[in-house]
Amino acid sequence: MSLLVIGTLAYDTIETVHDKREGMLGGSAVYFAVAAAHFAPPRLVGVIGKDFQDEHLAGLRERGIDCSGVEVADGKTFRWGGRYEADWNTRHTLFTHLNVFEHFEPKVPDAMRDSRFVFLANAHPKIQLQGLQQVDKPEFVVADTMNLWIDVALDDLKNLLRHVDGLALNDEEARMLSGESNLIRAAQQVMGMGPRYLILKKGEHGAFVMGEDLHFSLPAYPVTEVIDPTGAGDSFAGGFMGAVAAQGNTSPQTMRKAMLYGTVTASFCVQGFSIEDIGQRTRMDFDERYAELLSIVTV
Amino acid sequence: MSLLVIGTLAYDTIETVHDKREGMLGGSAVYFAVAAAHFAPPRLVGVIGKDFQDEHLAGLRERGIDCSGVEVADGKTFRWGGRYEADWNTRHTLFTHLNVFEHFEPKVPDAMRDSRFVFLANAHPKIQLQGLQQVDKPEFVVADTMNLWIDVALDDLKNLLRHVDGLALNDEEARMLSGESNLIRAAQQVMGMGPRYLILKKGEHGAFVMGEDLHFSLPAYPVTEVIDPTGAGDSFAGGFMGAVAAQGNTSPQTMRKAMLYGTVTASFCVQGFSIEDIGQRTRMDFDERYAELLSIVTV
Repeated sequence: MSLLVIGTLAYDTIETVHDKREGMLGGSAVYFAVAAAHFAPPRLVGVIGKDFQDEHLAGLRERGIDCSGVEVADGKTFRWGGRYEADWNTRHTLFTHLNVFEHFEPKVPDAMRDSRFVFLANAHPKIQLQGLQQVDKPEFVVADTMNLWIDVALDDLKNLLRHVDGLALNDEEARMLSGESNLIRAAQQVMGMGPRYLILKKGEHGAFVMGEDLHFSLPAYPVTEVIDPTGAGDSFAGGFMGAVAAQGNTSPQTMRKAMLYGTVTASFCVQGFSIEDIGQRTRMDFDERYAELLSIVTV
Repeated sequence: MSLLVIGTLAYDTIETVHDKREGMLGGSAVYFAVAAAHFAPPRLVGVIGKDFQDEHLAGLRERGIDCSGVEVADGKTFRWGGRYEADWNTRHTLFTHLNVFEHFEPKVPDAMRDSRFVFLANAHPKIQLQGLQQVDKPEFVVADTMNLWIDVALDDLKNLLRHVDGLALNDEEARMLSGESNLIRAAQQVMGMGPRYLILKKGEHGAFVMGEDLHFSLPAYPVTEVIDPTGAGDSFAGGFMGAVAAQGNTSPQTMRKAMLYGTVTASFCVQGFSIEDIGQRTRMDFDERYAELLSIVTV
Protein backbone atom coordinates (compact mmCIF):
# COMPACT_ATOMS: atom_id res chain seq x y z
CA MET A 1 0.00 0.00 0.00
CA SER A 2 1.19 3.53 -0.74
CA LEU A 3 3.31 5.12 1.98
CA LEU A 4 4.16 8.82 2.04
CA VAL A 5 6.68 10.60 4.26
CA ILE A 6 7.06 14.36 4.55
CA GLY A 7 10.21 15.52 6.33
CA THR A 8 13.82 16.60 6.11
CA LEU A 9 16.75 15.60 3.98
CA ALA A 10 19.88 16.81 5.71
CA TYR A 11 23.60 16.70 6.12
CA ASP A 12 24.62 15.85 9.67
CA THR A 13 27.79 16.35 11.65
CA ILE A 14 28.02 13.91 14.52
CA GLU A 15 30.47 13.68 17.38
CA THR A 16 30.58 10.63 19.62
CA VAL A 17 33.16 9.65 22.21
CA HIS A 18 34.77 7.43 19.57
CA ASP A 19 34.55 9.40 16.36
CA LYS A 20 33.58 12.58 14.54
CA ARG A 21 31.93 12.57 11.13
CA GLU A 22 30.97 15.60 9.05
CA GLY A 23 28.38 16.18 6.35
CA MET A 24 26.81 12.72 6.39
CA LEU A 25 23.49 12.03 4.73
CA GLY A 26 20.74 12.37 7.33
CA GLY A 27 17.36 13.92 8.01
CA SER A 28 14.10 12.49 9.33
CA ALA A 29 12.62 11.64 5.94
CA VAL A 30 15.82 10.00 4.77
CA TYR A 31 16.05 7.74 7.82
CA PHE A 32 12.34 6.98 7.61
CA ALA A 33 12.34 6.22 3.89
CA VAL A 34 15.50 4.10 3.90
CA ALA A 35 14.02 2.07 6.79
CA ALA A 36 10.53 1.79 5.28
CA ALA A 37 11.88 0.84 1.85
CA HIS A 38 12.75 -2.56 3.27
CA PHE A 39 9.00 -3.20 3.56
CA ALA A 40 7.09 -0.99 1.09
CA PRO A 41 8.23 1.57 -1.52
CA PRO A 42 8.02 5.02 0.14
CA ARG A 43 7.14 8.33 -1.46
CA LEU A 44 9.23 11.22 -0.20
CA VAL A 45 8.27 14.89 0.03
CA GLY A 46 10.95 17.32 1.19
CA VAL A 47 13.38 20.00 0.11
CA ILE A 48 17.10 20.03 -0.66
CA GLY A 49 19.57 22.74 -1.63
CA LYS A 50 21.74 22.99 -4.68
CA ASP A 51 24.56 21.38 -2.69
CA PHE A 52 22.72 18.09 -2.27
CA GLN A 53 24.80 15.44 -3.94
CA ASP A 54 23.39 13.65 -6.97
CA GLU A 55 24.76 10.36 -5.74
CA HIS A 56 22.72 10.67 -2.56
CA LEU A 57 19.51 11.24 -4.48
CA ALA A 58 20.40 8.41 -6.81
CA GLY A 59 21.07 6.19 -3.81
CA LEU A 60 17.60 6.86 -2.44
CA ARG A 61 15.99 6.13 -5.82
CA GLU A 62 17.90 2.86 -6.10
CA ARG A 63 16.23 1.77 -2.89
CA GLY A 64 12.82 2.19 -4.49
CA ILE A 65 12.13 5.56 -2.88
CA ASP A 66 10.03 7.84 -5.09
CA CYS A 67 11.86 11.17 -4.90
CA SER A 68 9.60 13.08 -7.28
CA GLY A 69 8.33 15.07 -4.28
CA VAL A 70 11.80 16.32 -3.40
CA GLU A 71 12.01 19.98 -4.32
CA VAL A 72 15.37 21.57 -5.14
CA ALA A 73 15.52 25.11 -3.76
CA ASP A 74 18.06 27.87 -4.04
CA GLY A 75 20.41 27.70 -1.12
CA LYS A 76 21.98 25.00 1.00
CA THR A 77 20.53 21.80 2.38
CA PHE A 78 19.45 21.64 6.02
CA ARG A 79 22.46 20.95 8.24
CA TRP A 80 22.54 19.75 11.82
CA GLY A 81 25.35 19.00 14.22
CA GLY A 82 25.16 17.05 17.46
CA ARG A 83 27.41 15.55 20.08
CA TYR A 84 26.58 12.51 22.24
CA GLU A 85 27.83 11.85 25.75
CA ALA A 86 29.32 8.45 26.52
CA ASP A 87 26.00 7.13 27.89
CA TRP A 88 24.24 7.99 24.57
CA ASN A 89 21.28 9.43 26.47
CA THR A 90 22.54 13.00 26.54
CA ARG A 91 22.71 14.80 23.22
CA HIS A 92 23.98 18.32 22.68
CA THR A 93 22.95 20.20 19.57
CA LEU A 94 26.05 21.87 18.18
CA PHE A 95 24.27 23.78 15.42
CA THR A 96 21.06 23.85 13.40
CA HIS A 97 21.23 25.52 10.00
CA LEU A 98 17.72 25.31 8.59
CA ASN A 99 18.86 26.73 5.24
CA VAL A 100 16.30 25.78 2.53
CA PHE A 101 14.12 24.08 5.16
CA GLU A 102 13.43 27.45 6.81
CA HIS A 103 10.83 28.37 4.19
CA PHE A 104 9.80 24.83 3.31
CA GLU A 105 6.22 24.45 2.21
CA PRO A 106 5.48 20.84 1.39
CA LYS A 107 4.17 20.26 -2.11
CA VAL A 108 2.69 16.81 -2.48
CA PRO A 109 2.82 15.88 -6.19
CA ASP A 110 -0.52 14.93 -7.74
CA ALA A 111 0.60 11.36 -8.17
CA MET A 112 1.17 11.04 -4.41
CA ARG A 113 -2.13 12.49 -3.24
CA ASP A 114 -3.74 9.07 -3.11
CA SER A 115 -1.29 7.87 -0.46
CA ARG A 116 -2.98 5.61 2.09
CA PHE A 117 -0.34 5.64 4.80
CA VAL A 118 1.33 8.91 5.81
CA PHE A 119 4.16 9.79 8.18
CA LEU A 120 4.59 13.44 9.09
CA ALA A 121 8.16 13.66 10.33
CA ASN A 122 9.11 16.27 12.89
CA ALA A 123 8.47 19.84 11.67
CA HIS A 124 6.41 22.82 12.75
CA PRO A 125 2.88 21.41 13.22
CA LYS A 126 1.50 24.00 10.78
CA ILE A 127 3.82 22.65 8.10
CA GLN A 128 2.87 19.10 8.99
CA LEU A 129 -0.83 19.93 8.65
CA GLN A 130 -0.22 21.80 5.41
CA GLY A 131 1.38 18.66 4.00
CA LEU A 132 -1.35 16.37 5.30
CA GLN A 133 -4.12 18.45 3.78
CA GLN A 134 -2.74 17.75 0.32
CA VAL A 135 -3.41 14.02 0.73
CA ASP A 136 -6.88 13.00 -0.45
CA LYS A 137 -8.10 10.40 1.98
CA PRO A 138 -5.32 8.82 4.00
CA GLU A 139 -6.14 5.68 5.94
CA PHE A 140 -3.55 5.94 8.67
CA VAL A 141 -1.56 9.07 9.51
CA VAL A 142 1.19 9.18 12.14
CA ALA A 143 2.96 12.36 13.19
CA ASP A 144 6.22 12.89 15.04
CA THR A 145 7.02 16.05 16.95
CA MET A 146 9.61 17.46 19.38
CA ASN A 147 9.84 19.39 22.64
CA LEU A 148 10.38 22.66 20.75
CA TRP A 149 6.90 22.57 19.20
CA ILE A 150 5.27 21.52 22.47
CA ASP A 151 6.92 24.59 23.92
CA VAL A 152 6.38 27.23 21.23
CA ALA A 153 3.53 25.96 19.04
CA LEU A 154 1.27 24.00 21.38
CA ASP A 155 -1.99 25.25 19.86
CA ASP A 156 -0.86 24.35 16.35
CA LEU A 157 0.23 20.96 17.61
CA LYS A 158 -3.10 20.33 19.32
CA ASN A 159 -4.86 21.32 16.11
CA LEU A 160 -2.73 18.85 14.15
CA LEU A 161 -3.51 16.10 16.67
CA ARG A 162 -7.18 16.28 15.74
CA HIS A 163 -6.25 15.22 12.20
CA VAL A 164 -3.89 12.31 12.81
CA ASP A 165 -4.44 8.69 13.81
CA GLY A 166 -1.22 8.22 15.71
CA LEU A 167 1.45 10.27 17.42
CA ALA A 168 5.01 9.11 17.98
CA LEU A 169 6.69 10.57 21.04
CA ASN A 170 9.64 9.82 23.23
CA ASP A 171 9.18 9.60 27.00
CA GLU A 172 10.35 13.16 27.66
CA GLU A 173 8.00 14.60 25.03
CA ALA A 174 5.06 12.56 26.34
CA ARG A 175 5.63 13.89 29.85
CA MET A 176 5.97 17.45 28.54
CA LEU A 177 2.88 17.35 26.33
CA SER A 178 0.66 15.72 28.97
CA GLY A 179 2.03 17.25 32.15
CA GLU A 180 1.99 13.72 33.62
CA SER A 181 5.20 12.08 34.87
CA ASN A 182 3.71 8.56 34.80
CA LEU A 183 4.03 7.36 31.20
CA ILE A 184 0.80 5.38 31.15
CA ARG A 185 -1.22 8.31 32.40
CA ALA A 186 0.73 10.54 30.00
CA ALA A 187 -0.22 8.27 27.11
CA GLN A 188 -3.88 8.32 28.12
CA GLN A 189 -3.83 12.13 28.31
CA VAL A 190 -2.28 12.47 24.87
CA MET A 191 -4.84 10.10 23.36
CA GLY A 192 -7.51 12.38 24.75
CA MET A 193 -6.10 15.09 22.47
CA GLY A 194 -7.13 13.24 19.34
CA PRO A 195 -4.86 10.43 18.18
CA ARG A 196 -6.28 6.91 18.37
CA TYR A 197 -2.78 5.54 18.91
CA LEU A 198 0.24 6.70 20.82
CA ILE A 199 3.60 5.17 19.96
CA LEU A 200 5.93 5.82 22.84
CA LYS A 201 9.65 5.38 22.21
CA LYS A 202 11.95 4.89 25.20
CA GLY A 203 15.26 4.34 23.38
CA GLU A 204 17.29 1.58 25.01
CA HIS A 205 14.28 0.80 27.21
CA GLY A 206 12.03 -0.19 24.34
CA ALA A 207 8.70 1.16 23.19
CA PHE A 208 4.99 0.72 23.60
CA VAL A 209 1.87 1.46 21.61
CA MET A 210 -1.46 2.28 23.19
CA GLY A 211 -4.81 2.53 21.49
CA GLU A 212 -8.48 1.79 22.04
CA ASP A 213 -8.05 -1.82 21.01
CA LEU A 214 -4.39 -2.26 21.85
CA HIS A 215 -1.72 -2.00 24.53
CA PHE A 216 1.54 -3.60 23.51
CA SER A 217 4.92 -3.08 25.10
CA LEU A 218 8.31 -4.47 24.19
CA PRO A 219 11.95 -4.03 25.15
CA ALA A 220 14.59 -2.74 22.75
CA TYR A 221 16.62 -5.21 20.73
CA PRO A 222 19.80 -5.80 22.77
CA VAL A 223 22.38 -3.99 20.66
CA THR A 224 25.83 -4.61 22.13
CA GLU A 225 27.61 -1.73 20.39
CA VAL A 226 25.99 1.59 19.59
CA ILE A 227 27.87 3.66 17.02
CA ASP A 228 25.45 6.57 16.49
CA PRO A 229 21.86 6.85 17.78
CA THR A 230 20.93 9.60 15.30
CA GLY A 231 17.86 8.62 13.30
CA ALA A 232 16.80 5.80 15.63
CA GLY A 233 13.34 7.29 16.18
CA ASP A 234 12.73 7.95 12.47
CA SER A 235 14.06 4.51 11.57
CA PHE A 236 11.73 3.00 14.13
CA ALA A 237 8.85 4.89 12.55
CA GLY A 238 9.99 3.79 9.09
CA GLY A 239 10.11 0.13 10.05
CA PHE A 240 6.79 0.43 11.84
CA MET A 241 4.93 2.29 9.09
CA GLY A 242 6.60 0.23 6.38
CA ALA A 243 5.37 -2.97 8.01
CA VAL A 244 1.87 -1.54 8.50
CA ALA A 245 1.72 -0.34 4.88
CA ALA A 246 2.99 -3.69 3.62
CA GLN A 247 0.25 -5.42 5.60
CA GLY A 248 -2.31 -2.90 4.41
CA ASN A 249 -4.24 -2.72 7.67
CA THR A 250 -3.99 -1.50 11.26
CA SER A 251 -5.34 -4.51 13.10
CA PRO A 252 -3.90 -5.07 16.60
CA GLN A 253 -1.96 -8.03 15.22
CA THR A 254 -0.42 -5.89 12.46
CA MET A 255 0.45 -3.13 14.94
CA ARG A 256 2.19 -5.55 17.30
CA LYS A 257 4.30 -7.08 14.55
CA ALA A 258 5.04 -3.60 13.19
CA MET A 259 6.36 -2.58 16.62
CA LEU A 260 8.83 -5.46 16.42
CA TYR A 261 9.89 -4.42 12.91
CA GLY A 262 10.30 -0.84 14.14
CA THR A 263 12.47 -2.08 16.98
CA VAL A 264 14.59 -4.21 14.65
CA THR A 265 14.96 -1.31 12.23
CA ALA A 266 16.09 1.12 14.93
CA SER A 267 18.59 -1.44 16.19
CA PHE A 268 20.27 -1.61 12.78
CA CYS A 269 20.22 2.17 12.51
CA VAL A 270 22.20 2.79 15.71
CA GLN A 271 24.86 0.26 14.70
CA GLY A 272 26.34 2.69 12.18
CA PHE A 273 26.70 6.34 11.25
CA SER A 274 24.10 7.80 8.89
CA ILE A 275 22.42 5.05 6.90
CA GLU A 276 25.63 3.02 6.69
CA ASP A 277 24.30 0.00 8.55
CA ILE A 278 20.60 0.11 7.86
CA GLY A 279 21.13 0.96 4.21
CA GLN A 280 23.09 -2.22 3.51
CA ARG A 281 20.77 -4.64 5.29
CA THR A 282 18.82 -7.24 3.37
CA ARG A 283 15.31 -8.43 4.01
CA MET A 284 16.88 -11.61 5.36
CA ASP A 285 18.77 -9.60 8.00
CA PHE A 286 15.48 -8.08 9.09
CA ASP A 287 13.73 -11.41 9.28
CA GLU A 288 16.56 -13.02 11.22
CA ARG A 289 16.67 -10.26 13.80
CA TYR A 290 12.87 -10.21 13.97
CA ALA A 291 12.94 -13.90 14.84
CA GLU A 292 15.62 -13.31 17.46
CA LEU A 293 13.68 -10.45 19.05
CA LEU A 294 10.53 -12.56 18.96
CA SER A 295 12.32 -15.32 20.86
CA ILE A 296 13.53 -12.80 23.46
CA VAL A 297 10.03 -11.47 24.16
CA THR A 298 7.95 -14.63 23.82
CA VAL A 299 6.76 -16.03 27.14
CA MET B 1 9.29 -27.45 46.51
CA SER B 2 11.09 -26.03 49.55
CA LEU B 3 12.12 -22.38 49.29
CA LEU B 4 14.49 -20.72 51.74
CA VAL B 5 15.27 -17.01 52.09
CA ILE B 6 18.02 -15.55 54.24
CA GLY B 7 17.83 -11.79 54.77
CA THR B 8 16.62 -8.91 56.87
CA LEU B 9 13.49 -8.21 58.86
CA ALA B 10 13.34 -4.48 59.46
CA TYR B 11 11.38 -1.43 60.43
CA ASP B 12 11.44 1.22 57.73
CA THR B 13 10.81 4.94 57.75
CA ILE B 14 9.84 6.18 54.30
CA GLU B 15 9.34 9.68 52.98
CA THR B 16 7.75 10.30 49.61
CA VAL B 17 6.52 13.54 48.08
CA HIS B 18 3.03 12.60 49.26
CA ASP B 19 3.52 11.04 52.68
CA LYS B 20 5.82 10.06 55.51
CA ARG B 21 5.50 6.77 57.37
CA GLU B 22 7.59 5.60 60.33
CA GLY B 23 8.49 2.18 61.69
CA MET B 24 6.73 0.11 59.03
CA LEU B 25 7.41 -3.59 58.63
CA GLY B 26 10.06 -4.05 55.96
CA GLY B 27 13.33 -5.80 55.19
CA SER B 28 14.48 -7.86 52.22
CA ALA B 29 13.43 -11.24 53.62
CA VAL B 30 10.01 -9.92 54.65
CA TYR B 31 9.26 -8.53 51.18
CA PHE B 32 10.62 -11.68 49.56
CA ALA B 33 8.73 -14.09 51.79
CA VAL B 34 5.39 -12.24 51.65
CA ALA B 35 5.69 -12.20 47.85
CA ALA B 36 6.84 -15.81 47.53
CA ALA B 37 4.15 -17.08 49.92
CA HIS B 38 1.58 -16.46 47.19
CA PHE B 39 3.25 -19.31 45.26
CA ALA B 40 5.09 -21.64 47.67
CA PRO B 41 5.52 -21.65 51.48
CA PRO B 42 8.83 -19.93 52.24
CA ARG B 43 11.24 -20.66 55.06
CA LEU B 44 12.77 -17.55 56.58
CA VAL B 45 16.17 -17.17 58.25
CA GLY B 46 17.00 -13.82 59.82
CA VAL B 47 17.32 -11.91 63.03
CA ILE B 48 15.05 -9.54 64.94
CA GLY B 49 15.44 -7.52 68.13
CA LYS B 50 13.37 -7.64 71.29
CA ASP B 51 11.31 -4.73 69.91
CA PHE B 52 9.95 -6.74 66.98
CA GLN B 53 6.21 -6.87 67.38
CA ASP B 54 4.55 -10.22 67.98
CA GLU B 55 1.72 -9.33 65.66
CA HIS B 56 4.19 -8.88 62.80
CA LEU B 57 5.71 -12.30 63.36
CA ALA B 58 2.23 -13.78 63.70
CA GLY B 59 1.24 -12.06 60.44
CA LEU B 60 4.12 -13.71 58.63
CA ARG B 61 3.24 -17.11 60.05
CA GLU B 62 -0.38 -16.71 58.99
CA ARG B 63 0.84 -16.36 55.44
CA GLY B 64 2.45 -19.79 55.65
CA ILE B 65 5.95 -18.45 56.21
CA ASP B 66 8.04 -20.74 58.39
CA CYS B 67 9.66 -18.37 60.91
CA SER B 68 11.48 -20.99 62.95
CA GLY B 69 14.75 -19.67 61.49
CA VAL B 70 14.12 -16.16 62.82
CA GLU B 71 16.47 -15.58 65.73
CA VAL B 72 15.57 -13.10 68.46
CA ALA B 73 18.69 -11.26 69.62
CA ASP B 74 19.28 -8.76 72.39
CA GLY B 75 18.93 -5.27 71.02
CA LYS B 76 16.77 -3.54 68.47
CA THR B 77 15.60 -4.66 65.04
CA PHE B 78 17.37 -3.35 61.92
CA ARG B 79 16.00 0.08 61.00
CA TRP B 80 16.31 1.95 57.75
CA GLY B 81 15.04 5.31 56.59
CA GLY B 82 14.80 6.56 53.01
CA ARG B 83 13.39 9.44 51.06
CA TYR B 84 12.28 9.31 47.40
CA GLU B 85 12.35 12.18 44.93
CA ALA B 86 9.23 12.87 42.88
CA ASP B 87 10.53 10.83 39.92
CA TRP B 88 10.97 7.73 42.17
CA ASN B 89 14.32 7.02 40.60
CA THR B 90 16.37 8.94 43.14
CA ARG B 91 16.46 7.55 46.66
CA HIS B 92 18.28 9.14 49.58
CA THR B 93 19.17 6.99 52.57
CA LEU B 94 18.27 8.97 55.68
CA PHE B 95 19.71 6.50 58.18
CA THR B 96 20.77 2.85 58.51
CA HIS B 97 20.77 1.41 62.02
CA LEU B 98 22.01 -2.17 61.64
CA ASN B 99 21.28 -2.93 65.31
CA VAL B 100 20.98 -6.74 65.76
CA PHE B 101 21.80 -7.26 62.07
CA GLU B 102 25.34 -5.93 62.65
CA HIS B 103 26.53 -9.21 64.14
CA PHE B 104 24.07 -11.45 62.31
CA GLU B 105 25.36 -14.93 61.60
CA PRO B 106 22.69 -16.94 59.79
CA LYS B 107 21.75 -20.17 61.50
CA VAL B 108 19.77 -22.43 59.20
CA PRO B 109 17.67 -24.80 61.36
CA ASP B 110 18.22 -28.50 60.73
CA ALA B 111 14.73 -28.83 59.32
CA MET B 112 15.52 -26.25 56.64
CA ARG B 113 18.84 -27.69 55.46
CA ASP B 114 17.15 -29.75 52.78
CA SER B 115 15.84 -26.61 51.03
CA ARG B 116 15.95 -26.98 47.26
CA PHE B 117 15.49 -23.35 46.26
CA VAL B 118 17.43 -20.61 48.05
CA PHE B 119 17.41 -16.82 47.87
CA LEU B 120 20.28 -14.98 49.53
CA ALA B 121 18.95 -11.46 50.04
CA ASN B 122 21.33 -8.54 50.09
CA ALA B 123 23.95 -8.81 52.86
CA HIS B 124 27.75 -8.94 53.09
CA PRO B 125 28.75 -11.72 50.66
CA LYS B 126 30.61 -13.54 53.46
CA ILE B 127 27.36 -13.73 55.43
CA GLN B 128 25.49 -14.87 52.32
CA LEU B 129 28.02 -17.65 51.74
CA GLN B 130 27.96 -18.64 55.40
CA GLY B 131 24.20 -19.09 55.15
CA LEU B 132 24.38 -20.99 51.87
CA GLN B 133 26.95 -23.45 53.21
CA GLN B 134 24.44 -24.65 55.78
CA VAL B 135 22.12 -25.90 53.04
CA ASP B 136 22.81 -29.52 52.06
CA LYS B 137 22.33 -29.67 48.32
CA PRO B 138 20.34 -26.79 46.93
CA GLU B 139 19.08 -27.08 43.37
CA PHE B 140 18.84 -23.40 42.49
CA VAL B 141 20.45 -20.57 44.45
CA VAL B 142 19.98 -16.89 43.59
CA ALA B 143 21.82 -14.07 45.36
CA ASP B 144 21.09 -10.37 45.49
CA THR B 145 23.76 -7.78 46.29
CA MET B 146 24.28 -4.00 46.29
CA ASN B 147 26.77 -1.36 45.18
CA LEU B 148 28.30 -1.20 48.68
CA TRP B 149 29.57 -4.80 48.48
CA ILE B 150 30.80 -4.37 44.92
CA ASP B 151 32.76 -1.44 46.30
CA VAL B 152 34.13 -2.75 49.60
CA ALA B 153 33.93 -6.57 49.39
CA LEU B 154 34.50 -7.41 45.74
CA ASP B 155 36.69 -10.46 46.40
CA ASP B 156 34.13 -11.92 48.79
CA LEU B 157 31.39 -11.25 46.27
CA LYS B 158 33.35 -12.92 43.47
CA ASN B 159 33.91 -15.90 45.74
CA LEU B 160 30.18 -16.11 46.45
CA LEU B 161 29.40 -15.93 42.73
CA ARG B 162 31.20 -19.24 42.18
CA HIS B 163 28.63 -20.90 44.45
CA VAL B 164 25.34 -19.51 43.14
CA ASP B 165 23.24 -20.31 40.08
CA GLY B 166 21.81 -16.85 39.60
CA LEU B 167 22.54 -13.27 40.52
CA ALA B 168 19.92 -10.53 40.71
CA LEU B 169 21.21 -7.04 39.97
CA ASN B 170 19.79 -3.69 39.00
CA ASP B 171 21.23 -1.87 36.01
CA GLU B 172 23.55 0.35 38.06
CA GLU B 173 24.98 -2.61 39.97
CA ALA B 174 25.48 -4.60 36.76
CA ARG B 175 27.43 -1.73 35.21
CA MET B 176 29.50 -1.30 38.39
CA LEU B 177 30.32 -5.00 38.81
CA SER B 178 31.20 -5.56 35.15
CA GLY B 179 32.76 -2.23 34.25
CA GLU B 180 30.62 -2.30 31.10
CA SER B 181 28.09 0.44 30.37
CA ASN B 182 26.18 -1.65 27.80
CA LEU B 183 23.81 -3.88 29.80
CA ILE B 184 24.04 -6.89 27.50
CA ARG B 185 27.83 -6.89 27.62
CA ALA B 186 27.60 -6.26 31.38
CA ALA B 187 25.36 -9.31 31.77
CA GLN B 188 27.74 -11.45 29.75
CA GLN B 189 30.69 -10.31 31.89
CA VAL B 190 28.87 -11.08 35.14
CA MET B 191 27.94 -14.54 33.89
CA GLY B 192 31.63 -15.14 33.29
CA MET B 193 32.11 -14.72 37.05
CA GLY B 194 30.14 -17.87 37.85
CA PRO B 195 26.36 -17.56 37.80
CA ARG B 196 24.50 -19.45 35.08
CA TYR B 197 21.75 -16.85 35.12
CA LEU B 198 21.68 -13.10 35.52
CA ILE B 199 18.39 -11.46 36.44
CA LEU B 200 18.63 -7.80 35.58
CA LYS B 201 16.05 -5.47 37.11
CA LYS B 202 15.50 -2.08 35.49
CA GLY B 203 12.64 -0.81 37.67
CA GLU B 204 10.02 0.99 35.58
CA HIS B 205 11.83 -0.18 32.45
CA GLY B 206 11.29 -3.87 33.12
CA ALA B 207 13.71 -6.73 33.56
CA PHE B 208 15.54 -9.42 31.66
CA VAL B 209 17.10 -12.76 32.42
CA MET B 210 20.09 -14.16 30.59
CA GLY B 211 21.48 -17.66 30.76
CA GLU B 212 23.09 -20.32 28.61
CA ASP B 213 19.74 -21.54 27.39
CA LEU B 214 17.72 -18.37 27.83
CA HIS B 215 17.43 -14.69 26.98
CA PHE B 216 14.08 -13.24 27.95
CA SER B 217 13.21 -9.58 28.33
CA LEU B 218 9.99 -7.91 29.36
CA PRO B 219 8.68 -4.46 30.25
CA ALA B 220 7.39 -3.53 33.68
CA TYR B 221 3.68 -3.83 34.40
CA PRO B 222 2.21 -0.35 33.70
CA VAL B 223 1.46 0.83 37.24
CA THR B 224 -0.36 4.17 37.06
CA GLU B 225 0.25 5.22 40.65
CA VAL B 226 3.37 4.40 42.61
CA ILE B 227 3.02 4.85 46.38
CA ASP B 228 6.35 3.47 47.60
CA PRO B 229 8.96 1.59 45.55
CA THR B 230 10.68 0.12 48.63
CA GLY B 231 10.90 -3.65 48.40
CA ALA B 232 10.17 -3.82 44.66
CA GLY B 233 13.38 -5.73 43.92
CA ASP B 234 12.88 -8.23 46.76
CA SER B 235 9.21 -8.67 45.85
CA PHE B 236 10.24 -9.31 42.26
CA ALA B 237 12.70 -11.94 43.51
CA GLY B 238 10.00 -13.41 45.77
CA GLY B 239 7.49 -13.73 42.95
CA PHE B 240 10.15 -15.10 40.63
CA MET B 241 11.61 -17.66 43.04
CA GLY B 242 8.17 -18.55 44.39
CA ALA B 243 6.98 -19.36 40.89
CA VAL B 244 10.14 -21.35 40.13
CA ALA B 245 9.85 -23.30 43.40
CA ALA B 246 6.16 -23.97 42.77
CA GLN B 247 7.04 -25.33 39.34
CA GLY B 248 9.92 -27.32 40.78
CA ASN B 249 12.27 -26.81 37.85
CA THR B 250 14.33 -24.15 36.07
CA SER B 251 13.43 -24.87 32.47
CA PRO B 252 13.46 -21.86 30.13
CA GLN B 253 9.67 -21.99 30.07
CA THR B 254 9.47 -21.89 33.87
CA MET B 255 11.98 -19.03 34.04
CA ARG B 256 10.03 -16.96 31.50
CA LYS B 257 6.75 -17.38 33.35
CA ALA B 258 8.52 -16.70 36.65
CA MET B 259 9.80 -13.39 35.25
CA LEU B 260 6.19 -12.39 34.59
CA TYR B 261 5.17 -13.40 38.09
CA GLY B 262 8.11 -11.41 39.50
CA THR B 263 6.99 -8.39 37.48
CA VAL B 264 3.39 -8.73 38.65
CA THR B 265 4.52 -9.12 42.26
CA ALA B 266 6.74 -6.02 42.15
CA SER B 267 3.86 -4.04 40.61
CA PHE B 268 1.62 -4.83 43.58
CA CYS B 269 4.43 -4.03 46.01
CA VAL B 270 4.95 -0.46 44.76
CA GLN B 271 1.23 0.28 44.96
CA GLY B 272 1.39 0.55 48.75
CA PHE B 273 3.65 1.24 51.69
CA SER B 274 5.34 -1.73 53.33
CA ILE B 275 3.44 -4.96 52.54
CA GLU B 276 0.07 -3.18 52.64
CA ASP B 277 -0.84 -3.87 49.03
CA ILE B 278 1.01 -7.07 48.26
CA GLY B 279 0.06 -8.61 51.60
CA GLN B 280 -3.66 -8.39 50.92
CA ARG B 281 -3.60 -9.73 47.37
CA THR B 282 -5.23 -13.02 46.52
CA ARG B 283 -3.98 -15.60 44.10
CA MET B 284 -6.78 -14.47 41.79
CA ASP B 285 -5.36 -10.92 41.76
CA PHE B 286 -2.02 -12.37 40.70
CA ASP B 287 -3.51 -14.49 37.95
CA GLU B 288 -5.61 -11.61 36.61
CA ARG B 289 -2.65 -9.25 36.43
CA TYR B 290 -0.49 -12.02 34.98
CA ALA B 291 -3.03 -12.45 32.19
CA GLU B 292 -3.12 -8.69 31.60
CA LEU B 293 0.69 -8.47 31.45
CA LEU B 294 0.77 -11.46 29.14
CA SER B 295 -1.63 -9.71 26.78
CA ILE B 296 0.56 -6.58 26.81
CA VAL B 297 3.71 -8.47 25.85
CA THR B 298 2.32 -11.09 23.48
CA VAL B 299 3.10 -10.39 19.83
